[in-house]
Amino acid sequence: MKKDLISNDIQLNASGKLVHLLGLEGLSKQHLTHILDVADDLLDAQGNLKKSKALDDMSVANLFFEPSTRTRNTFEIAGKRTSANIINVDLANSATKKNESLLDTMHTLKAMQIDMFVIRHKQSGLPHYVAENIGNVAILNAGDGINAHPTQALLDMLTIRQYKKNFESLSVAIVGDILHSRVAHSGIQALKTLGTKDIRLIAPEGLQYESKNCDTIKCFTDIETGLKDCDVIMVLRLQKERMMEADIPNEQEYFDNYGLTFERLALAKPGAIVMHPGPINRGVEIDSSVADGEQSVILQQVTNGIAVRMAVMEILAGKS
Amino acid sequence: MKKDLISNDIQLNASGKLVHLLGLEGLSKQHLTHILDVADDLLDAQGNLKKSKALDDMSVANLFFEPSTRTRNTFEIAGKRTSANIINVDLANSATKKNESLLDTMHTLKAMQIDMFVIRHKQSGLPHYVAENIGNVAILNAGDGINAHPTQALLDMLTIRQYKKNFESLSVAIVGDILHSRVAHSGIQALKTLGTKDIRLIAPEGLQYESKNCDTIKCFTDIETGLKDCDVIMVLRLQKERMMEADIPNEQEYFDNYGLTFERLALAKPGAIVMHPGPINRGVEIDSSVADGEQSVILQQVTNGIAVRMAVMEILAGKS
Amino acid sequence: MKKDLISNDIQLNASGKLVHLLGLEGLSKQHLTHILDVADDLLDAQGNLKKSKALDDMSVANLFFEPSTRTRNTFEIAGKRTSANIINVDLANSATKKNESLLDTMHTLKAMQIDMFVIRHKQSGLPHYVAENIGNVAILNAGDGINAHPTQALLDMLTIRQYKKNFESLSVAIVGDILHSRVAHSGIQALKTLGTKDIRLIAPEGLQYESKNCDTIKCFTDIETGLKDCDVIMVLRLQKERMMEADIPNEQEYFDNYGLTFERLALAKPGAIVMHPGPINRGVEIDSSVADGEQSVILQQVTNGIAVRMAVMEILAGKS
Repeated sequence: MKKDLISNDIQLNASGKLVHLLGLEGLSKQHLTHILDVADDLLDAQGNLKKSKALDDMSVANLFFEPSTRTRNTFEIAGKRTSANIINVDLANSATKKNESLLDTMHTLKAMQIDMFVIRHKQSGLPHYVAENIGNVAILNAGDGINAHPTQALLDMLTIRQYKKNFESLSVAIVGDILHSRVAHSGIQALKTLGTKDIRLIAPEGLQYESKNCDTIKCFTDIETGLKDCDVIMVLRLQKERMMEADIPNEQEYFDNYGLTFERLALAKPGAIVMHPGPINRGVEIDSSVADGEQSVILQQVTNGIAVRMAVMEILAGKS
Repeated sequence: MKKDLISNDIQLNASGKLVHLLGLEGLSKQHLTHILDVADDLLDAQGNLKKSKALDDMSVANLFFEPSTRTRNTFEIAGKRTSANIINVDLANSATKKNESLLDTMHTLKAMQIDMFVIRHKQSGLPHYVAENIGNVAILNAGDGINAHPTQALLDMLTIRQYKKNFESLSVAIVGDILHSRVAHSGIQALKTLGTKDIRLIAPEGLQYESKNCDTIKCFTDIETGLKDCDVIMVLRLQKERMMEADIPNEQEYFDNYGLTFERLALAKPGAIVMHPGPINRGVEIDSSVADGEQSVILQQVTNGIAVRMAVMEILAGKS
Repeated sequence: MKKDLISNDIQLNASGKLVHLLGLEGLSKQHLTHILDVADDLLDAQGNLKKSKALDDMSVANLFFEPSTRTRNTFEIAGKRTSANIINVDLANSATKKNESLLDTMHTLKAMQIDMFVIRHKQSGLPHYVAENIGNVAILNAGDGINAHPTQALLDMLTIRQYKKNFESLSVAIVGDILHSRVAHSGIQALKTLGTKDIRLIAPEGLQYESKNCDTIKCFTDIETGLKDCDVIMVLRLQKERMMEADIPNEQEYFDNYGLTFERLALAKPGAIVMHPGPINRGVEIDSSVADGEQSVILQQVTNGIAVRMAVMEILAGKS
């Protein structure tokens, strides 16, 4: 992962209030905790999502330049559950093809009085560029290149907090292609901000984090060593197009070296939780029975994803 | 039509209440009559659809694996008229392409707290498979392979009841590709359950029902004989890709042998009604002026289709 | 532009009330002024759009046979802001492919109790054909071939009225491919109806209006002469596929001859406003800094587009 040259400064206004969600760098523990608290309040005692009327006078546009039905659906569902008007803008067929610049499209959508843009784009920093150039519209980053995926990290933190309470004392292992993963990038940042002292990055040579080991972060190529006595295991999805870079000849070899099996899970602490951002490649990065097993919280992550996105929308709209 | 090996048992709970709608086999006359009664209550005295608030706290996903804009629109409109949140999930671009299994997608949608799945799939029995493997989500079959299309049969029954009242004394003719038609399959089942004693299946050799004649069902290859003195004519849509199997060289020959013309309609009882599931191939399975004529109830079927789908959604949601 | 043989008579009922919006020919100054007044009432003192409950019991279908994400979005947003149910019908995959005629599709949608159809089609007069053949559904023309684009003209008039008040005394220049532009066609008609005495059509040879000059309309090939002392400049979008007809070898030459620059803008009256229907080809029909400059009202046009479409929907629904 390259050092982040993309600044999130613009996401806080002069009073330190969150007005965009571009990334987690620059947010305090208080900011993160507030988002998690609002999300928790959107879940009832049985863990079911409540419905909110908070955004019933607002319009939100889903601007997905990179196809992702799944993530788009989560924002659509979250938006509808806050009673917002949601517009899915099909950017494959949009005017941007007709030489209208991206910013013209954004200014036009703003002039249609869309209050919030949810943006996914393959270019790192694109949501920041839009936020800098378009005033008075809240920008919510739904994944930009290999830079950040802040709502994924927040839903992961909400899930960890539900099962493990205290971040400071946790050992958290992240397994997979750390280098190219915006999920890992945002997750590491969130864990650091929330005070986690023992973050372990387990990756093949070539897919490892660029920075050196530091006080809170340790890098491993051997999964068995990395998982030892940890409390939380975050498995990353294998991006198959990256296998070449890490000299991985095929999926079977990846599974042999890095797949999460029951044997490896047994090295972690009893009661350790298993997380995955989905969709799962069963038998590639995770054994099917581990994914469906007692320690898996993968489906709880999905529910929390709706709650966190609702919470962020309400906060950016100034309603929470 | 092959003998049905697909069981609908799971659609009733221990108290006999409908919790999924997978097919009509296994439902009693009381079940069908209840659905038709709820649908009727959703129509006002002028036959216009009322709006309902019954599902205003629920989310419904349209999962169309087989393209059908028309049927998808009817479920979208029905869902919106019950005030549900409707999500159209584009499964062509979805995570199922990324090796996530179908069930993982379904579990994920359930974890997003979707309460009901409307499923169309080219594989017979797929909705049943989902219902068996995913708990606590209502499954509504919108057409599975050549197996069943229960809401189509129910809207047909509602239409017949509006015009003819008593099912027991009716003679109902179904004309076309009986063999491959899920519409015919579900329609025959509904008519039998509601007590119709004279069901006539009119089809070319090769597209006829597999079972032998029985007390209530008679098979005909000659349309003139089959239509004689009947009360209801249900015309099926010609699936052109099936013409080879029945040795039909072209559409003109099909029309000559099986197209519903005024001459043939005159063989039925005066006041017999003409039905078609749409979209019509004018001049192929039905003469244009018969489709638009006084005895045609084709557009009433469309309106009833919304009412029946609203009714089923309300019943599965436990609201009616 | 060919003489209009397409009649809009059907859009007024016997009492002169607007029941469809097909085009502006045949509408009186009172009709247009009423639409603009309703639209103005939908904007608050800061020029922001209000939300209306006027259509909360109605369903509107967006029927876009010609792809236009941008215009479709404006109708979707406008419909949602009036609280209507909006259905986007994907006509590329619809039953019209399966030999169902266009009218059968329309009758089917009407039977689903859709109250209003918003139609865009490449064939001039198609919305009129639908209006003539389908009763009791309001038809809203969102652009038909080179014939008309009435809501675009109405939003342009609303914008002019906000800045310039009185139409009678204005000099309005329209620059670009007048011949093929439904925007120009509808705009000229609106200006004439509202009493504008000095309409100037500036176009290359081959893209000019067919009719001769008359009292209120003057044709120019030279942009500098045409812009002299005008109050309003409406720049048309260059349709690149038309360049051949007008002997324009490339975009640079078009910009050299017809692009709106600050130099040319300076020929107009001080305070003249610059309009464009979007999306802009920067550096082709308009200089980038003119598009973003003080005299540009292009983004106000976008906001007014929502207000005007809301107003037309409310009027056709009999709510305003």
